[in-house]
Amino acid sequence: MYNQMYKEGEGMLFVITGNGKGKTTSALGMSLRMLGAGGRVFFMQFIKGKEYSEIKALRQLEGVDVHITGRECFIRRDPDEEDYQRAQNAFALFQEALQDSYDLYVLDELNIALYYELISIDHVLKVLEEASKKKDIVVTGRYAPEELKSIAKMVSEVKEIKHHYKEGIQARKGIEF
Amino acid sequence: MYNQMYKEGEGMLFVITGNGKGKTTSALGMSLRMLGAGGRVFFMQFIKGKEYSEIKALRQLEGVDVHITGRECFIRRDPDEEDYQRAQNAFALFQEALQDSYDLYVLDELNIALYYELISIDHVLKVLEEASKKKDIVVTGRYAPEELKSIAKMVSEVKEIKHHYKEGIQARKGIEF
Repeated sequence: MYNQMYKEGEGMLFVITGNGKGKTTSALGMSLRMLGAGGRVFFMQFIKGKEYSEIKALRQLEGVDVHITGRECFIRRDPDEEDYQRAQNAFALFQEALQDSYDLYVLDELNIALYYELISIDHVLKVLEEASKKKDIVVTGRYAPEELKSIAKMVSEVKEIKHHYKEGIQARKGIEF
Repeated sequence: MYNQMYKEGEGMLFVITGNGKGKTTSALGMSLRMLGAGGRVFFMQFIKGKEYSEIKALRQLEGVDVHITGRECFIRRDPDEEDYQRAQNAFALFQEALQDSYDLYVLDELNIALYYELISIDHVLKVLEEASKKKDIVVTGRYAPEELKSIAKMVSEVKEIKHHYKEGIQARKGIEF
């Protein structure tokens, strides 16, 4: 099996943060890479609830389990009890999945769930620090907490230098969503 | 057809640069998104010559044409006549493909080809500025030239904050390649 190449101490926690475009797409690309290598991928998306184009494409590939756990239109309102429950349940499901032999775990937009305090940061840190000793885990989203960055082996920050929305061009299907 | 939603003036040039991990993976994720939306993708990789895992996975998807145009082990030596020819031919092939109805064009590591002066920057700027009026084009790689950034509608810089190679962990299949 693919994952036998992994040894204790070889896992890593990879955090992709910053205000620029390309965090989720980067995690998708990493998933594609792992699937291409014959590995299995656990892809969980927090906060977002819509089945975007990229998720549809991802589902077509063999070896990936996709969990979209948020609701639509989260961003424009304050979180409520359902958001809290969904995030909690999602993270619990991820913890169960850690018992399984995935070669890559993606927790897309987990940083946003932490930013809104939908899940306890202490709990998340404890789970991720332990799990990433053996497993490869990618966490994305703006506002990555400092404590999370400090336990990560790799941190990338995507900085927005220039963005066409600001020039009045609309978001389009297949490009932004 | 999908691409009929595009109108004159709606294309964009998107540059992903910086020293951090996640530029090619981000372009792969964008490709996945476009394919999931039912669009067609032209994916061209400069400089690199190996069929990495992610390329294998990408090829499995319907609607994408993949062109890997470099040679193995470019990075550790100076460019020679073959590198120059390959880059020139690749860019010419891209120009031909512009006549076709792809919904997204990815020129992965083109910045590196420009950095090594394998293709004329003036020629590339002229072609991309004109083509991106109607087409969506993504250019990746470190050292994006300032002139390229200035004609782009969107620029993301991936900054390396922390990297595990520096802690002595080896690159592994499915994760880094």
